[in-house]
Amino acid sequence: MEDKLQIARRLDSLGISYIEGGWPGSNPKDMEFFKAIQSIGLENSRLAAFSSTRKPGISVKQDLNLQALLDSGAPCATLVGKSWDFHVLRALETTLEENLNMVRESIAYLKDKGKEVIFDAEHFFDGFKANRDYALQVLKTAEEAGADWIVLCDTNGGSMPWEVEDIVLQVRQVIGAPLGIHAHNDAGCAVSNSLIAVQNGCLQVQGTINGYGERCGNADLCSIIPNLELKMHLSCLPPGRLKSISEVSHYIAEIANMPHHNNQPFVGYGAFAHKGGIHVSALLKDSLTYEHINPEDVGNHRRVLVSELSGLSNLLYKARELNLDVNSYSAQTRAVIKQIKELESQGFQFEGADASLELFLRKAFGQCTDFFQLKNLKVILEKSEQGDIVSEAMIKLCAGGRTFHTAADGDGPVNALDNALRKALTEVYPEIQEMHLSDYKVRVLDGKEGTAAKVRVLIESADQSGKWNTVGVSENIIEASWQALVDSINYLLLKRRQNQPEYN
Amino acid sequence: MEDKLQIARRLDSLGISYIEGGWPGSNPKDMEFFKAIQSIGLENSRLAAFSSTRKPGISVKQDLNLQALLDSGAPCATLVGKSWDFHVLRALETTLEENLNMVRESIAYLKDKGKEVIFDAEHFFDGFKANRDYALQVLKTAEEAGADWIVLCDTNGGSMPWEVEDIVLQVRQVIGAPLGIHAHNDAGCAVSNSLIAVQNGCLQVQGTINGYGERCGNADLCSIIPNLELKMHLSCLPPGRLKSISEVSHYIAEIANMPHHNNQPFVGYGAFAHKGGIHVSALLKDSLTYEHINPEDVGNHRRVLVSELSGLSNLLYKARELNLDVNSYSAQTRAVIKQIKELESQGFQFEGADASLELFLRKAFGQCTDFFQLKNLKVILEKSEQGDIVSEAMIKLCAGGRTFHTAADGDGPVNALDNALRKALTEVYPEIQEMHLSDYKVRVLDGKEGTAAKVRVLIESADQSGKWNTVGVSENIIEASWQALVDSINYLLLKRRQNQPEYN
Repeated sequence: MEDKLQIARRLDSLGISYIEGGWPGSNPKDMEFFKAIQSIGLENSRLAAFSSTRKPGISVKQDLNLQALLDSGAPCATLVGKSWDFHVLRALETTLEENLNMVRESIAYLKDKGKEVIFDAEHFFDGFKANRDYALQVLKTAEEAGADWIVLCDTNGGSMPWEVEDIVLQVRQVIGAPLGIHAHNDAGCAVSNSLIAVQNGCLQVQGTINGYGERCGNADLCSIIPNLELKMHLSCLPPGRLKSISEVSHYIAEIANMPHHNNQPFVGYGAFAHKGGIHVSALLKDSLTYEHINPEDVGNHRRVLVSELSGLSNLLYKARELNLDVNSYSAQTRAVIKQIKELESQGFQFEGADASLELFLRKAFGQCTDFFQLKNLKVILEKSEQGDIVSEAMIKLCAGGRTFHTAADGDGPVNALDNALRKALTEVYPEIQEMHLSDYKVRVLDGKEGTAAKVRVLIESADQSGKWNTVGVSENIIEASWQALVDSINYLLLKRRQNQPEYN
Repeated sequence: MEDKLQIARRLDSLGISYIEGGWPGSNPKDMEFFKAIQSIGLENSRLAAFSSTRKPGISVKQDLNLQALLDSGAPCATLVGKSWDFHVLRALETTLEENLNMVRESIAYLKDKGKEVIFDAEHFFDGFKANRDYALQVLKTAEEAGADWIVLCDTNGGSMPWEVEDIVLQVRQVIGAPLGIHAHNDAGCAVSNSLIAVQNGCLQVQGTINGYGERCGNADLCSIIPNLELKMHLSCLPPGRLKSISEVSHYIAEIANMPHHNNQPFVGYGAFAHKGGIHVSALLKDSLTYEHINPEDVGNHRRVLVSELSGLSNLLYKARELNLDVNSYSAQTRAVIKQIKELESQGFQFEGADASLELFLRKAFGQCTDFFQLKNLKVILEKSEQGDIVSEAMIKLCAGGRTFHTAADGDGPVNALDNALRKALTEVYPEIQEMHLSDYKVRVLDGKEGTAAKVRVLIESADQSGKWNTVGVSENIIEASWQALVDSINYLLLKRRQNQPEYN
């Protein structure tokens, strides 16, 4: 639920019009989310809760999903109903007439309760092709019952772009309510189908960030929004927000722990990457030669893989931020850039680990040293036939001119190590008791190497005044965790000595 | 070069009409490929070599690229030429007139040498929008010079589907030669743009398997071919070959060492995966309810995932797939569902771990037991002051009525454990040498617990006949990895005993 709240806040600040927060009738987690998000409040987005139309043969008041939707308190309802006769008869096992009653009564009930109702006509395109009259009758029923929006769903994702165009145009001749499109990507056409629907009069697009969704996914809003704004000159975000779409895309991939695809249109790391040769020399003359938009418009960057210029300017920017006295032409600066590039090629990623980058830069420019020196450490894990597991860590280190040798156990080897390290340092640095690890992430960098793969560990730490992030990389997960742990503690100690409560 | 030859053979047996094998003028490896492939011969595909039109200000005979193209011996030439005035003036730095000469003379020269010439009009759509007359003049020049095909390229990948439709229709009014389309995916529309071009009269589609290509990639043939055949009822492969497209897609990803995306339309592992309880109960009634095509038509399979949202019907579907005799009303079945829900609430996720689910179900229904019993294991990691790290694992287990006690080291503790386990089992189960771990993923489930967080490990294993996925969950990453490793090996041994080479 904490992830969902964070995502909702991000979508709100991006300026997405509606956030469909879940299906309150399906599980208690979704219901909790609706309660929590309403106490926080949203600035730009309207909150929608999902439900299907009432079940066949019961009244709306008896329907638990509709009741849960009302209980959620969301001002807007996304109500899905059948519009394909085959589905009504085969999946729902009810009559075509009863399905119309379900649509009519569910919408009227929600309207009566003051909700904005978005009616999602499930399988509309397939339904239209199979039984045009019935599919349109479902839409008309929804319109007459008071639906604020009628959304045409390509639920199975198999429609061709010209079918979407043709059918949207036909629907517009009989339906006056504002139309929307909900496309899936099973035929690889979800983005185009959504854009074509808008081009032909739809005013709402339903999709997901990075196209996440069942099977081949939903329509990717990270492609649709830039196309709407930059190609079709339709505004769908508040002014200036488009620039944050790349960041939102990466952020949500991170929360979902999904790899971010380099070749993702607009927001991918490689979306504006150019290799050497002809392309680059043409780009240097004019970027329009090989770029369809300006990458900065979507918060992305051009990457010319042979150039070192960007690395230098980023580093200089960061160093100036830290008040380090760097001279862009000095041999020292160039050596530091080389070292950073070397670390990045090993898998370090400083974008998500500002504290590690700051420590690295301050050390490189002679502004700080480590607060303790490791002598040795040992981690032991034992599992018996009964399945009991014991994890222990022993550590020997020097701090404040003294040597400490101690041991601790924990929930797993990394936790044991963490406990032993804190135990060894507490006497000299009691302030570490005020910090705790607030997040721990592991990413396998080259999964094809199997259990010998390199892993990147990201640790977020916090004390009463803020949070900071550190990183470690190794084939050995315990070593990678150790690196991030050590940085995390060194950073706290550095900040306390600098008397700087602000970490980010 | 060996990779290229293998790929060419696969494309040929899939039945791709033309294989563009490289740019013989750009590097000696491509030239070698052309020599080698011609000694092998192709059954279905015609071989094409790539070059640009001659350079400005020289004769065709002086142009090294054109000479290399002829030397390659390929029967067909893909010749790229400029059709956007801006590119001629800014990138090529020559006159509009000289560019027309370059197009005319290069094509005439290749035709004179007996080549089939495919003229790729680079940046055609951008060129048409900027200077319609000049762009069309380039095409007319190519047609008059004898080009067999005229291919409209959306080189920067930014065109909208309706622009492609409109422009293709306009080109058809002035060009009689067969037309083709070459789309890039920078706006997420490459597949649709290609299909729309065909719908409006183009007869050739240029693309790549899995959409590999610069920036956001080329048009993905693994989406385009199934759409052409199954949706548009146009044949582009020899009869019966479409069924091998999933295999070709995976094969080429393997050769390219690129991860295969689960959500890739038609050919992705998850393209026909279903998890919602409602979806699955409808699928059991009729697969058309939630599938736009029959997965077998493209050599893929339906997968029913057991997940949080799922109920009884997913499990029953899965059990029937495994030929388990389940009765949906039995207490045993209900107990198994309860156990699965319990495991899922602990953090197990079976939707990415079919093999672990199958093992769990077969054990629950008394159809299999483990192939070995652990007595104990111990993992030791030591790091010295110098930073050297040693990871060792000791293991004692019973298999085939005997006890094995052995040790191994590795790159990190999990790798050491993996090595020790294989070492202990190889004598009794030599077949485990034929499998390897092909992917290893770690996800931290509740990062807020810091280093004591629960982690989920997903392991993908492979042998010569397929892949399978297993899962483990624990606060201890080594224990979670161990669970997934054990399942991975048990699954291989089970399948070998069942004599089932197909894993999924």
